[in-house]
Amino acid sequence: MLIVQKFGGTSVGDLERIQNVANRVSESKKAGNDIVVVVSAMSGETNKLVSYAEHFSKNPSRAEMDMLLSSGERVTASLLSIALQEMGHDAVAMTGRKAGIVTDKHHTKARIEEINPHNMQNALKKGKVVVVAGFQGVNDAGDVTTLGRGGSDLSAVAIAGALKADLCEIYTDVSGIFTTDPRIEPKAKKLERISYDEMLELASLGAKVLQNRSVELAKKLHVNLVTRTSFSNEEGTLITTEGNIMEKPLVSGIALDRNQARISLVGVKDRPGIASEIFNALADAEVNVDMIIQNKAIDETTNIDFTVPVSDLHDAKSVVESFLKSGDINSDSYNEDICKVSVVGVGMKSHAGVAAKAFSTMATNNININMISTSEIKVSMVIDEKYAELAVRSLHEAYELDK
Amino acid sequence: MLIVQKFGGTSVGDLERIQNVANRVSESKKAGNDIVVVVSAMSGETNKLVSYAEHFSKNPSRAEMDMLLSSGERVTASLLSIALQEMGHDAVAMTGRKAGIVTDKHHTKARIEEINPHNMQNALKKGKVVVVAGFQGVNDAGDVTTLGRGGSDLSAVAIAGALKADLCEIYTDVSGIFTTDPRIEPKAKKLERISYDEMLELASLGAKVLQNRSVELAKKLHVNLVTRTSFSNEEGTLITTEGNIMEKPLVSGIALDRNQARISLVGVKDRPGIASEIFNALADAEVNVDMIIQNKAIDETTNIDFTVPVSDLHDAKSVVESFLKSGDINSDSYNEDICKVSVVGVGMKSHAGVAAKAFSTMATNNININMISTSEIKVSMVIDEKYAELAVRSLHEAYELDK
Repeated sequence: MLIVQKFGGTSVGDLERIQNVANRVSESKKAGNDIVVVVSAMSGETNKLVSYAEHFSKNPSRAEMDMLLSSGERVTASLLSIALQEMGHDAVAMTGRKAGIVTDKHHTKARIEEINPHNMQNALKKGKVVVVAGFQGVNDAGDVTTLGRGGSDLSAVAIAGALKADLCEIYTDVSGIFTTDPRIEPKAKKLERISYDEMLELASLGAKVLQNRSVELAKKLHVNLVTRTSFSNEEGTLITTEGNIMEKPLVSGIALDRNQARISLVGVKDRPGIASEIFNALADAEVNVDMIIQNKAIDETTNIDFTVPVSDLHDAKSVVESFLKSGDINSDSYNEDICKVSVVGVGMKSHAGVAAKAFSTMATNNININMISTSEIKVSMVIDEKYAELAVRSLHEAYELDK
Repeated sequence: MLIVQKFGGTSVGDLERIQNVANRVSESKKAGNDIVVVVSAMSGETNKLVSYAEHFSKNPSRAEMDMLLSSGERVTASLLSIALQEMGHDAVAMTGRKAGIVTDKHHTKARIEEINPHNMQNALKKGKVVVVAGFQGVNDAGDVTTLGRGGSDLSAVAIAGALKADLCEIYTDVSGIFTTDPRIEPKAKKLERISYDEMLELASLGAKVLQNRSVELAKKLHVNLVTRTSFSNEEGTLITTEGNIMEKPLVSGIALDRNQARISLVGVKDRPGIASEIFNALADAEVNVDMIIQNKAIDETTNIDFTVPVSDLHDAKSVVESFLKSGDINSDSYNEDICKVSVVGVGMKSHAGVAAKAFSTMATNNININMISTSEIKVSMVIDEKYAELAVRSLHEAYELDK
């Protein structure tokens, strides 16, 4: 098998851990696999370099930041390659450039445009373990770029796609994807397999193991992703196409997102295009709107409720202010003491009654549902934040996820 | 003027010092000069990275070491560029690759083969301050290489040569080249100007401000080198062609090398080619032989005396052993308690009596001279180590270098 293994900052956090990673890579190689390793900077390094830069400027140039920050991954890649060589493996460290990772020109948040994998392929053909500095690429001007948050995961997935690897393993300090947050529900079980779409719903709803960008890229490139821990030999969770999941569970997991605020607009002027105006203005202000509910009362006034991440609330308020001033809205109100609980599962597509069970579970526990939104594979409910844990545990039990 | 300014590890040792360097560069730029800055890694960084590598291997791969070590200069270059931008300058950081520094393929001790200066020239044309990561280049396989000890000085000199810069300033923690080591003779004076050849003699003899490789390259490329301190505005020492030095002093300086050992071979078999055999064998063992004296006694036996750096003594002994075994030499003896004192000056070429004055100074002070060697611009004497300071001070006074 050709396996791409990605190790994050905590997994390579000090020299002993880098040696542990070398041991793990060595085992995989000895088991007869071809291995490409993608590494992040040692944990703390990137923050240190950022603080250095901020010593000189509050708004340092992005091109310089990329040259600065890309150095951390180069250090880890060289060290891991040296450790593997010392263990008798033929290893070679590659920068993003050498690995053929070509990006667009947007410094500090570049997108991978293509991968020219011939250097990696040549090395693999010679039986080498390839160690790639993650998080970085090179633009067409020949300058180093970085990929933004979760960039090393993206490097790994893109490389796995370009090399048509059998597996892309993402090693973190979490052992896989759970049916819900084990800190809330200790009976939470690790999932063996989950589809890309379920993972996307779980990730965006709060299960922060993988960034959505990486899952989306894996889906697009048909990369079989595994998230597992580097601190034990425990099996992780395979994230793959729905077709690879034989027994599709009705519900895979319960996600909780506490980072939501609700905005209520009362007495929205009843004229065509007003909703579009409001949400376009929010989009222009880069406010991420999640759920939207619009009600038209009998007296012909319209109310619009929507949720945004708490971090976007300030910007959202500014936008709303302008509509208040122009008289398009009568009044507004805000509520940060809410959360969103979601039931996610591909099985919903073919089974009725999943949503009904969620609502009745809330009712049984006297939890009032403020907003509801559903998709093919998800039911989301906005409730008062104080009920967050109760709701998660009740739903986890109702769908028998602990069984 | 187009000036290349190189700042070593101590000069960029922490964030405050990097800011000081930015201030200094800013002043030079505001004075109307075009500036290219070459920086080393922050002091301690390279040693830290080396110790990391040695944690994994006693003999780490050179290619990986280059990827590892080259990261330190990239950090400094990015940070300095950010600091300059914050001060309102249009600055751009460049890696060795971007600056067009092409080397041969010898990792960790690469030689610069050519410089393609168009990226630097384009940036300079736009009025930018160019900040180059020193110590590194790229080989024709596209891999990063490093230039070995003193590598950032070499980067600076080579860049100055390629850009036909008016001046190449090397900033260190020493304010220039002195007539002798001020720790031995407090009356030592800083030289305003010195020729490349004198500098080469002084450097190889112990005045460790600049590596010979850099001075040789400056001589070859006709680069006017200045060594000065980054910790004050004191003028430094200009190292230039003899033609630029109007009043050629008889003697420019007194150098002391304590790092010498003397090897005496007694009863060397009197057959043609024996000396050549011995010194070829030493060369094969990479022993650096300095002074050689051969005496043929009246009884037809030959004695050969030579000096080597103390660090090469062990290897030299092994070579001598083999000639003892084969009977080509009767006996050998070693003396590490010696030193070499040298009088250096271009003026010697045209003035007689310089050597005679050196010998009589030794005689006046009852210092026995063990070996003598001379060149056009230098008289070197091997003496007992205990007389080292006395010899240096007496010669310094005899040639009136304190005047």
